Amino acid sequence: MILVETSHPGNIGAAARALKNMDLQELVLVRPRQFPSAEANARASGATDILEKARVCATLAEAAADCTLVLATTSRERDHYYRVLDVRDAAQRAVAAAAQGPVGIVFGPEQSGLTNDDLANTHALLRIPTGEHYASLNVAMAVQIVSYEILRARGTAVPVAPREVPLATAQNMELMYAHLADVLEEIDFRERTQNGSNLHNRIRRFLQRAELDGNEVNILRGILSAVQQRRRRAGA
Amino acid sequence: MILVETSHPGNIGAAARALKNMDLQELVLVRPRQFPSAEANARASGATDILEKARVCATLAEAAADCTLVLATTSRERDHYYRVLDVRDAAQRAVAAAAQGPVGIVFGPEQSGLTNDDLANTHALLRIPTGEHYASLNVAMAVQIVSYEILRARGTAVPVAPREVPLATAQNMELMYAHLADVLEEIDFRERTQNGSNLHNRIRRFLQRAELDGNEVNILRGILSAVQQRRRRAGA
Repeated sequence: MILVETSHPGNIGAAARALKNMDLQELVLVRPRQFPSAEANARASGATDILEKARVCATLAEAAADCTLVLATTSRERDHYYRVLDVRDAAQRAVAAAAQGPVGIVFGPEQSGLTNDDLANTHALLRIPTGEHYASLNVAMAVQIVSYEILRARGTAVPVAPREVPLATAQNMELMYAHLADVLEEIDFRERTQNGSNLHNRIRRFLQRAELDGNEVNILRGILSAVQQRRRRAGA
Repeated sequence: MILVETSHPGNIGAAARALKNMDLQELVLVRPRQFPSAEANARASGATDILEKARVCATLAEAAADCTLVLATTSRERDHYYRVLDVRDAAQRAVAAAAQGPVGIVFGPEQSGLTNDDLANTHALLRIPTGEHYASLNVAMAVQIVSYEILRARGTAVPVAPREVPLATAQNMELMYAHLADVLEEIDFRERTQNGSNLHNRIRRFLQRAELDGNEVNILRGILSAVQQRRRRAGA
């Protein structure tokens, strides 16, 4: 990630943290207004190591010298000269290209964006979609979104893991539904409705949706048993 | 977007900008440490209007009262009680659900994250994938990524067939839980367990997971009332 002429040191720190959060390492700063800085360190939080090893360059050409693919961020939807890639596609592209050589992604100054000169080494533009009413993203936020999409593109995102307690078997669910039907009948709930079986199905559906585990089914059955016992003790 | 006990006013401002950049509007602050604040305004940049109309609440329950879907951000990969949705899937889900009622997405305090109490109104957890070495995202960055995915989901999401009946509001769910607590006490279920309150939480969690609609809540309350009436008629 290459940040050009960043004005606010806080943004440099926040960008460092954004990189490290997404398992990226290399930050290059072209003519930062103030660096190093205490504010950058504070905003970097646990990512001050990224700041310590950040490279500071006088020109973008120097910063991007060893890159085999350079993408520059833009707010434009189209461009006369460059392909404009959506950030998601750009991230895929960057990850694929990184197998072959360093990839640079360039972020312009907060106020003005990149100049045409800055684009000299660019292979394509990268665009982050925004709303219409206020399209100007903070530069560190842009770094965060790009880094996030790169992490996703790398496929390192850990897949959502299974539940710790196994889900109840269909058979256990059936036993619980039968128990529920008994209790509903005992408390005359069935007769209070126009269409008892339909109602029971409604309950089934939302309990199915909840994807209950074995413990949770036991809790429900405990409640059902308690209702039955209290009624019997009450001599009903 | 609901921010709970945010410590740094700068993060509140940055979150406001992140929302507006992605065409979102509504920011709710639960017990912010400092608000309004000059630092929040500065970081909001062109999004101070979002701050001006931000709602400040004393509790998360109040903040989420009218929400029909509540998602809470988490850094956990798995959870005992709640489904953990990847942020991209969660955004699709939120956009689809927003057609039927307000959706709340909850972000915890910078240092500590959300407590179990904070999760009382949650239907599912939302996880932003991160790298392994430094997984702690800044809260405004998390808001940015979620908002970005919501903008994308709005553009691409073919609306999932909506539920026929709108989901129950958090407030209606609360009334139902209170009713359930009464009945459990009446049938002495509480005393039969080692830890009554913990059990009630377990029930809450799987009912939250089921995402009940208004009719389903009425069915449950009808059953609870039937249990109460039968016991009274039986002279218990």
